[in-house]
Amino acid sequence: MALIVQKYGGTSVASAERIGAVADRVARSRAAGHQVAVVVSAMAGETDRLLGLAASLRHPPRGRELDVVLASGEQASIGLLAMALEARGCPACSYTGAQVPIRTDSSFNRARILEIDGRRIRSDLEAGRVVVVAGFQGADEEGSITTLGRGGSDTTGVALAVALQADECQIYTDVDGVYTADPRIEPNARRLDRLTFEEMLELSSLGAKVLQIRAMEFASKYRVPLRVLSSFEDGPGTMIVPEDEEEGMEQPLISGIAFNRDEAKITVHRVPDRPGVAYRLLADIAAANIEVDMIVQNAAPEHDETDFTFTVNRNDYERAREMVDPVAEELGAERVTGDPRIVKLSLVGVGMRSHAGIASRMFDALARESVNIQMISTSEIKISVVVDERYLELGVRALHEAFDLHDG
Amino acid sequence: MALIVQKYGGTSVASAERIGAVADRVARSRAAGHQVAVVVSAMAGETDRLLGLAASLRHPPRGRELDVVLASGEQASIGLLAMALEARGCPACSYTGAQVPIRTDSSFNRARILEIDGRRIRSDLEAGRVVVVAGFQGADEEGSITTLGRGGSDTTGVALAVALQADECQIYTDVDGVYTADPRIEPNARRLDRLTFEEMLELSSLGAKVLQIRAMEFASKYRVPLRVLSSFEDGPGTMIVPEDEEEGMEQPLISGIAFNRDEAKITVHRVPDRPGVAYRLLADIAAANIEVDMIVQNAAPEHDETDFTFTVNRNDYERAREMVDPVAEELGAERVTGDPRIVKLSLVGVGMRSHAGIASRMFDALARESVNIQMISTSEIKISVVVDERYLELGVRALHEAFDLHDG
Repeated sequence: MALIVQKYGGTSVASAERIGAVADRVARSRAAGHQVAVVVSAMAGETDRLLGLAASLRHPPRGRELDVVLASGEQASIGLLAMALEARGCPACSYTGAQVPIRTDSSFNRARILEIDGRRIRSDLEAGRVVVVAGFQGADEEGSITTLGRGGSDTTGVALAVALQADECQIYTDVDGVYTADPRIEPNARRLDRLTFEEMLELSSLGAKVLQIRAMEFASKYRVPLRVLSSFEDGPGTMIVPEDEEEGMEQPLISGIAFNRDEAKITVHRVPDRPGVAYRLLADIAAANIEVDMIVQNAAPEHDETDFTFTVNRNDYERAREMVDPVAEELGAERVTGDPRIVKLSLVGVGMRSHAGIASRMFDALARESVNIQMISTSEIKISVVVDERYLELGVRALHEAFDLHDG
Repeated sequence: MALIVQKYGGTSVASAERIGAVADRVARSRAAGHQVAVVVSAMAGETDRLLGLAASLRHPPRGRELDVVLASGEQASIGLLAMALEARGCPACSYTGAQVPIRTDSSFNRARILEIDGRRIRSDLEAGRVVVVAGFQGADEEGSITTLGRGGSDTTGVALAVALQADECQIYTDVDGVYTADPRIEPNARRLDRLTFEEMLELSSLGAKVLQIRAMEFASKYRVPLRVLSSFEDGPGTMIVPEDEEEGMEQPLISGIAFNRDEAKITVHRVPDRPGVAYRLLADIAAANIEVDMIVQNAAPEHDETDFTFTVNRNDYERAREMVDPVAEELGAERVTGDPRIVKLSLVGVGMRSHAGIASRMFDALARESVNIQMISTSEIKISVVVDERYLELGVRALHEAFDLHDG
């Protein structure tokens, strides 16, 4: 008998019929002898509907009252799932974030979990009940309702697994695991049985959005065994494990290929190469909460000048240009160029650290397809390149082939 | 400066636009120098939508989890209204039933309010904030969410007015007050400026559903000044006052004419006239929670036999027949007859007590229109008759005319 936390996203509970299917699955886990705590999101579309109503009354929608509105979505879900379980003869009890309680700070709309008191839930589980907890929400010290920001239900799932010392945290989604590449782009992509937290973090931050990043950081920190699997079909899914548990296993060089099509790049040409310049170029952008992804400073073309390039989300491109252009002029840069039509391709794999030649094999594979590489950046377990957006599919397939990631 | 509780029903907050209109009205009350606590229902249609989802997962929908689902409707409303107030520069703070807290018993789906702690709300009001409270819901001792049953938002409004010792409880609805008769049936019906609680109770229980009965009992018991008015147009509405405050005023004989078109009658003919028979006839029906409205036992046609007639809601007619028929046979009754196509017409007025001749004037007015009276029942401030449903409109108009209730 194990204690399992199962998290179901909005598409898994999008209709009464799907809620019934989730209840069937939960009831099966319980019948198999497990103690099950379930975390659910709002029904798909519900959060957007509520956000739309809120936005039409106060623009931009934000603050304490927005969380009151949004949290109502998960509250409906938990009650409905608990009723579906009861209808199957499976005793169930639902809890809102405030009822658990899941204590958070008071940063409305993007609160952080401070503490989860698992006593009520544990006593329910021991009494044979399935516990259904609202994802995405908590309450601050005053008892005000808070939400954790988009995707926060993953975080709730993992944090609850930590609080309950669960044997496994299962994240049910609309894919049946993590793949070597997006199967919509590479039909030969293969489901991975296991993946380390670090690899998953890189894949996730690069656009393969299966799991929310904060949830994974949490799982990694507290070493919660995490499994990603489909709520629509049975299967083992993909197990996400700490890197040290992979010791002794045969390490694949590369776990997968990720991409991010939402990027735009900005290059400041021939800017004086002296301390403080990089700071000056990015200070306004940081203050405006525009996220900067890659930063590359090329080898100085002249002794006292350099080219400075960075990428931002495509939606922030115009705003970022407006901020950088005057600063670049002030600093005496030659000119500023930009391109909002780029994508980032990345190879991810913990095996990369101990092997040479990965990068050259990557560049060679892209060169054979005449894909021009505009930027390169590396970390311990990934190599990323920026290319023109029209090479996205070609590049993913070429790399998938070059690193033998194909099925079978 | 007064402390006012305003209660808005589902149709008043049916859309973002209407929520905005409510916010305008609330902000005007505050700008006029009043402290305002607002109670809101779920957006019109929302409770039915949630109930439909619940019913498709567990039939019949009931229990603790149903309240979790239903209460989410008002939670969305309070956050939305608070945001609309903030957008108008009016500081606002919302509270769910559990947050106030509104403490109830644990009778899920039809809980009763035990206690309201008004301290948080009062301190918000004193700080200049408008407080927005979710109607229809509370929390029991365990912290489980409870609901008060349909129309419970009225009860929340009145109970909150009591707890805050409010100067007035304003019930905003889609009519601009209480009328001498339903204006859809009697175009000459007149809005009443004042009405006693007792009269309002009788009018309400007879189908003129402006206010929930429990709310009025509460208001009457604690002597909360209550005003019914329209959320769509300005006007003084109808003030509901304790009877003793009407002393010295010129009393109208009759305040209004009510009707109930949902009734069905069942008559047990020639049942033995001995103690215990009435009990036997109604015991099963009471146990099945079928509500019995009128009960009339006619003068015994024979010394040792009598006719026993009662009315139930039309929806319960078949079920009630199935229960009564075997008991009647067992008791040796001659036969059972029934009619699900009847309506009840009632004259209501506190003035009635001190005047003779009302009943005969009523019967005369109906006789002139050849309306046959099937049953008669009286209380201190009303006279009710049961007639065939086809005489509903004719009967209402004849009585309205006979008692000079017309406008002007």
